Amino acid sequence: MTKTEYKMIEAYMQRMMRDSAHDKHHVYRVLNTALDIADHTEVNDKDVLIAACLLHDIGRDGSPAGPDGYCHAEAGGKAAFKFLLSIDWPEDKTLHVKECIASHRYRGNASPQSVEAKILYDADKLDASGALGIARTLIYEGQVTEPLYIMDTGGNIVTDGGGGGISSFFQEYNYKLKNVYTAFYTERAEEIALKRQKTAIGFYNGLYDEITENYTEGISKRLSLSDG
Amino acid sequence: MTKTEYKMIEAYMQRMMRDSAHDKHHVYRVLNTALDIADHTEVNDKDVLIAACLLHDIGRDGSPAGPDGYCHAEAGGKAAFKFLLSIDWPEDKTLHVKECIASHRYRGNASPQSVEAKILYDADKLDASGALGIARTLIYEGQVTEPLYIMDTGGNIVTDGGGGGISSFFQEYNYKLKNVYTAFYTERAEEIALKRQKTAIGFYNGLYDEITENYTEGISKRLSLSDG
Repeated sequence: MTKTEYKMIEAYMQRMMRDSAHDKHHVYRVLNTALDIADHTEVNDKDVLIAACLLHDIGRDGSPAGPDGYCHAEAGGKAAFKFLLSIDWPEDKTLHVKECIASHRYRGNASPQSVEAKILYDADKLDASGALGIARTLIYEGQVTEPLYIMDTGGNIVTDGGGGGISSFFQEYNYKLKNVYTAFYTERAEEIALKRQKTAIGFYNGLYDEITENYTEGISKRLSLSDG
Repeated sequence: MTKTEYKMIEAYMQRMMRDSAHDKHHVYRVLNTALDIADHTEVNDKDVLIAACLLHDIGRDGSPAGPDGYCHAEAGGKAAFKFLLSIDWPEDKTLHVKECIASHRYRGNASPQSVEAKILYDADKLDASGALGIARTLIYEGQVTEPLYIMDTGGNIVTDGGGGGISSFFQEYNYKLKNVYTAFYTERAEEIALKRQKTAIGFYNGLYDEITENYTEGISKRLSLSDG
């Protein structure tokens, strides 16, 4: 990749990025991580990897994607394909970038096939590990106005799919964040993630305890004010 | 306070609460905590404390308040005063609730005077301690579209007031969150906060290290792609 090409792709990415959980800092961290993984892994086409990292989230429109909804990975792959052809990239490389982007999503149907696709997937999932994953998820909850937690009728935090389908940080943690550590394709990604795992677990357990302790005492005290 | 009065104040609060960082769960946690502190502290008027807790954030309109801007504590105090008079609360208690609410803000000019005002202040600040404080701040950053961090020209995370005045999680942590532990009026609040402090510090340091490590290697690798 020439320096001019890199700058053109980077400028296009910057124009396309909007929200702060998946903003350009996220893109640069993913690229940083991918270049690190690439130093420890045999890569066939580094240009494809770099372009795929820069453009992997251009399909995000800021809205949450349900299983039947809009898929930012698929849309992003198509947009990247169109853009790279417009700056005269060869069709085979361009198609490869499209495939990498289409298969980078944790909830996606397509799984990554090439080593470049696997590195993009791992680098992106690393940004959902550790304190970074927690921080980005909480910022996202704020953006889409999802609560930190919901409680069942017994006053317990809902941590699974229950609670009338209302998403929350606790559900997202238990569905995705806590499971990323075993979902990597490359050894290097797993190594980085495991260094971060302790922080994430410490935070989650601390948060759970703080809320639970607050309510355990509080609920009975409050009930005496309003019941009867 | 009669049970009917409690239910009327609670219903009014629920109508007024909107965003998820300062939602009704926050109000109930503050009330839970205040009742806990009240068990360990000599309180003159528990009714005032309960009403002040329930109504302390009704002045929030979801927008961030700068030093010269709208003050949710002052506005909330006034709204609570009007509401409590409308349900025939005595004027002296109502005025006391107004004073408690007006002085509960960390950045506020008014400092809490009565023991009830101090307990509300402490209970509210406890929700800014530990993992809860971190989580609520990150959700808020998402709501008002503030970034996790900004970087200076040398690629370092800005942790103080620098960075062209752009607010970020790292700035808010260093301005407020890390300092709440020494800002309490009651011993009980300090005791609860100190149990939570380790989680908050662990998370902050973990996040700082993850980002710094990512960029330390990454920036030079990326520069070689675009420089020249």
